Amino acid sequence: MKIGLIGLGSMGVGIGHNLIVAGHTLTVYNRSKDKADGLLAEGAAWAATPRALAQGQDAVITMVADDHALQAVTLGEDGLLAGLAQNAVHISMSTVSQALVESLVAAHARHGSALISAPVFGRPDAAAAGKLFVVAAGQPEHIARVRPALEAVGQKLFEVGEQPQQAAVVKLIGNFLISCVIEGLGEGAALAEKAGVDPEKLMEVLTGTIFGAPVYQIYGKLITSGGYKNPGFALPLGAKDNRLVLQAAEAHHVPLPFASVVRDRFVRGMAQGLDGADWSAIASLAREDAGLKG
Amino acid sequence: MKIGLIGLGSMGVGIGHNLIVAGHTLTVYNRSKDKADGLLAEGAAWAATPRALAQGQDAVITMVADDHALQAVTLGEDGLLAGLAQNAVHISMSTVSQALVESLVAAHARHGSALISAPVFGRPDAAAAGKLFVVAAGQPEHIARVRPALEAVGQKLFEVGEQPQQAAVVKLIGNFLISCVIEGLGEGAALAEKAGVDPEKLMEVLTGTIFGAPVYQIYGKLITSGGYKNPGFALPLGAKDNRLVLQAAEAHHVPLPFASVVRDRFVRGMAQGLDGADWSAIASLAREDAGLKG
Amino acid sequence: MKIGLIGLGSMGVGIGHNLIVAGHTLTVYNRSKDKADGLLAEGAAWAATPRALAQGQDAVITMVADDHALQAVTLGEDGLLAGLAQNAVHISMSTVSQALVESLVAAHARHGSALISAPVFGRPDAAAAGKLFVVAAGQPEHIARVRPALEAVGQKLFEVGEQPQQAAVVKLIGNFLISCVIEGLGEGAALAEKAGVDPEKLMEVLTGTIFGAPVYQIYGKLITSGGYKNPGFALPLGAKDNRLVLQAAEAHHVPLPFASVVRDRFVRGMAQGLDGADWSAIASLAREDAGLKG
Amino acid sequence: MKIGLIGLGSMGVGIGHNLIVAGHTLTVYNRSKDKADGLLAEGAAWAATPRALAQGQDAVITMVADDHALQAVTLGEDGLLAGLAQNAVHISMSTVSQALVESLVAAHARHGSALISAPVFGRPDAAAAGKLFVVAAGQPEHIARVRPALEAVGQKLFEVGEQPQQAAVVKLIGNFLISCVIEGLGEGAALAEKAGVDPEKLMEVLTGTIFGAPVYQIYGKLITSGGYKNPGFALPLGAKDNRLVLQAAEAHHVPLPFASVVRDRFVRGMAQGLDGADWSAIASLAREDAGLKG
Repeated sequence: MKIGLIGLGSMGVGIGHNLIVAGHTLTVYNRSKDKADGLLAEGAAWAATPRALAQGQDAVITMVADDHALQAVTLGEDGLLAGLAQNAVHISMSTVSQALVESLVAAHARHGSALISAPVFGRPDAAAAGKLFVVAAGQPEHIARVRPALEAVGQKLFEVGEQPQQAAVVKLIGNFLISCVIEGLGEGAALAEKAGVDPEKLMEVLTGTIFGAPVYQIYGKLITSGGYKNPGFALPLGAKDNRLVLQAAEAHHVPLPFASVVRDRFVRGMAQGLDGADWSAIASLAREDAGLKG
Repeated sequence: MKIGLIGLGSMGVGIGHNLIVAGHTLTVYNRSKDKADGLLAEGAAWAATPRALAQGQDAVITMVADDHALQAVTLGEDGLLAGLAQNAVHISMSTVSQALVESLVAAHARHGSALISAPVFGRPDAAAAGKLFVVAAGQPEHIARVRPALEAVGQKLFEVGEQPQQAAVVKLIGNFLISCVIEGLGEGAALAEKAGVDPEKLMEVLTGTIFGAPVYQIYGKLITSGGYKNPGFALPLGAKDNRLVLQAAEAHHVPLPFASVVRDRFVRGMAQGLDGADWSAIASLAREDAGLKG
Repeated sequence: MKIGLIGLGSMGVGIGHNLIVAGHTLTVYNRSKDKADGLLAEGAAWAATPRALAQGQDAVITMVADDHALQAVTLGEDGLLAGLAQNAVHISMSTVSQALVESLVAAHARHGSALISAPVFGRPDAAAAGKLFVVAAGQPEHIARVRPALEAVGQKLFEVGEQPQQAAVVKLIGNFLISCVIEGLGEGAALAEKAGVDPEKLMEVLTGTIFGAPVYQIYGKLITSGGYKNPGFALPLGAKDNRLVLQAAEAHHVPLPFASVVRDRFVRGMAQGLDGADWSAIASLAREDAGLKG
Repeated sequence: MKIGLIGLGSMGVGIGHNLIVAGHTLTVYNRSKDKADGLLAEGAAWAATPRALAQGQDAVITMVADDHALQAVTLGEDGLLAGLAQNAVHISMSTVSQALVESLVAAHARHGSALISAPVFGRPDAAAAGKLFVVAAGQPEHIARVRPALEAVGQKLFEVGEQPQQAAVVKLIGNFLISCVIEGLGEGAALAEKAGVDPEKLMEVLTGTIFGAPVYQIYGKLITSGGYKNPGFALPLGAKDNRLVLQAAEAHHVPLPFASVVRDRFVRGMAQGLDGADWSAIASLAREDAGLKG
């Protein structure tokens, strides 16, 4: 397939690499061009604008930071929509608001093109290894058209509905549940430590029993090793996703008490200088609450 | 080994069965004798009191409801301690308070016998299948002495420290984290449902990706199927364990905001007639909050 | 003074009445004209648009529902700014976001006119009686110019700073603290009732001792009498103010755990059909949590 | 009347002083005698034990730290009950658990004497000035018998029911609501400060409008002045009352989400070295969360 890719952060670069490996013809765009160097060396072409990039593609993947960025690369004079062929499919992989997905669905409908929402679970190392989990929603014929692209970047593809916003909400719930794991482990590790139990031993028991899933393995290690100090997924992005899930839940009139607790953690993290750390740094606030230092 | 077993609830019966299967000589005691019928038919002997039961055993396992019950079967004229040989080991498998474990350690020390704490993770079906996870703490030589018994009931044995209360706190943290999974899934499922995503589809995505652990599989199913209406682990027991972890955390000066949210759920569940349901019934309160019925 | 008044809800009508009583020349505008009947009978003039209303006034007061409405009546071709004289003062009395106040300050500066923020504390009966408390912020010379108008509508005037957004944030904090009183009283009344203490007796003790302030008298009565069923200040408006204070706090990196709890109450109230009730109806959710009915 | 007084902390000393001023004959007891010096100088007699103190009194007032202390001075060989005449009345003024009040009611009934519960609102300066608010519950004839004593110590007497535990729960709810005021003001002051509003100005507006009650005046000042560093009512006592209200609410199946938030604050305060400060020191944690220092 001829595929355009917009957004070359640590996730986007991994995705692009796997598209090339799978034999697709890749054109890339990013706000700052230097992030493209690796993919250009692998054979990708460069486009000067989203609009230029979109021309002639079968599919355009966007993997950008937030609602604002997705709007900017999609709409307007130089946006991808202006260049997109009518039978082409825009694959939105960013974690964005339900409301924006709905408005882009409408914009594509007016243009004659199609949008599917296909956010992913996995951190940069999983993106690099082509081991993401892809959660897609959209019209089945649209998904079918771009299936080779979706399969190239992920180890598994889930289809959760015919409305693109359904994938968006599943992704928001998934990230919400990850944040709950982080907070729960943070509280539990603080208690273990003060009760004389080695937090690493606690994590070994948890992941060796009924909590034996990647989410506990990954975050348990980040928390006990201090690895949360290096941003794999930066705290402000976690705060953004928390805001998005609370907004979606408010729109649907669903209280989320756990998300409210986590919200207070993220706001406090921003106030206390953790904006350069991983989102799992909120676990350090549970330690601080317990009077633990360092 | 010659083993006594006190407490024949749904967990105790499964444990007893696997001890017999492994070739141990089993004597049992329970407040109401009828719960013993199955094990007696398998060859277990009956003792009229904990004291009588304890006489001549290498190890006595207690698997009772709460602090009060554990004190009652351990101490006093007819308690197991009064009958226990000095080189015998009391294996406490119940989820009880750190404080009680500490006081029983002292009582055993005065008596010349030993206590290890060995709470388990797993529900009744895992107990019946000998697939529990056993988390033990105590003096290594005491654990060594009863290892065959611990291995007979579980699929895996973790040793988390030389102080019995260390296993007690790990178990409390584990149950706290399960309650967090229940609450998080309850909130997430309510949002999914109101956003037009089938909660079963959500669970499929979660457990097929980074949440692929028994705790999500088991509780995801209980929540989406309505299975929480039948108590595998009754809500008042969940409320008790929540109280124990909050007490332990308070004693160590560790705030647990998630446990506080869950506490409010359990108290509300008791007020709203859910005391006959499984502890995962608190997920139904998130649905109720969202205006969902039935 | 020659004063324009935009927004004739139950608060606006009371404010207009007291301006006329104090001898000011009043012109009014409202989206639906029928709300103006009473004031027109008292001698007010009618203007067809905010722009027409603003022409020739010394001051224009806006008392509208939310950010959206305030933007709509202020900006644009028919907005008040288009008609306002350069030495005139726009007095914004609505509870709106800090962000909007900041942007309107800039718009007025470009126009050559002035904005002060002067939100009020008090419910419709206080507005009718001229007993509001007015919290003003803005340049002292701007406040001085319109002091007679501010004094006509309120029993007391507070000046809290030279930046209009300072009054906006004080008002948001005030409403946040009222919501805390409602939630606290709701929880306390539920406990009293289940412990066999008459909630009215509880309120009598509270307001007769150290809680002897209007906020406890007013909301204590609404809660114990069921008066919350009739909207004095409708629940969706309370939810809006809660959202505004959480937004302002997030922008300043201030966690507000109590506001988060109240947020969950408002969202649940919206889900459970309380959107036609007073915001104090969230107290009924504490009763429901406790298993109390009716 | 002939009155015994047990417990000479800062509250008890003020109460004793006003009993003497009102002309009552006072005998006092305290664990450490030096606290009695002032009252002895004013004419009080000293008793060596609670039992000795109780003999010959019309009423015995207890004003001690907690459940444990109240049990210790009431029951046992040297307890006041052993010395109390059958027509005498024990006035319990401490803030203690509902459960203890119930068990003391039964103990007095067996002894033939009477208990009324009469906890007070007010801090040490109010006790010294005889300006406490007294909340009494018990049989009307018992209250009638000791009314002169109750009136001597307080500015106002409320009777809230015929069961002593009713006053105990009203007092717990009152202290719970004070803790809510502290937490709410702490959050609000932190937001004001970061939004460029002087917290003292905020408090002036609040107490000058609908929040014009002593509880806002007193705690607003403690919070903005840093006065919370000196314990008027020490943080561990606040934590104890929070625990008592949560226990009472749990026994009655009433969730108290605000009390849960406050609980986490107190536990954190204990962990972070605030156990020597006033309970209003939890407001400093809201500042810390917001990244404010000093």
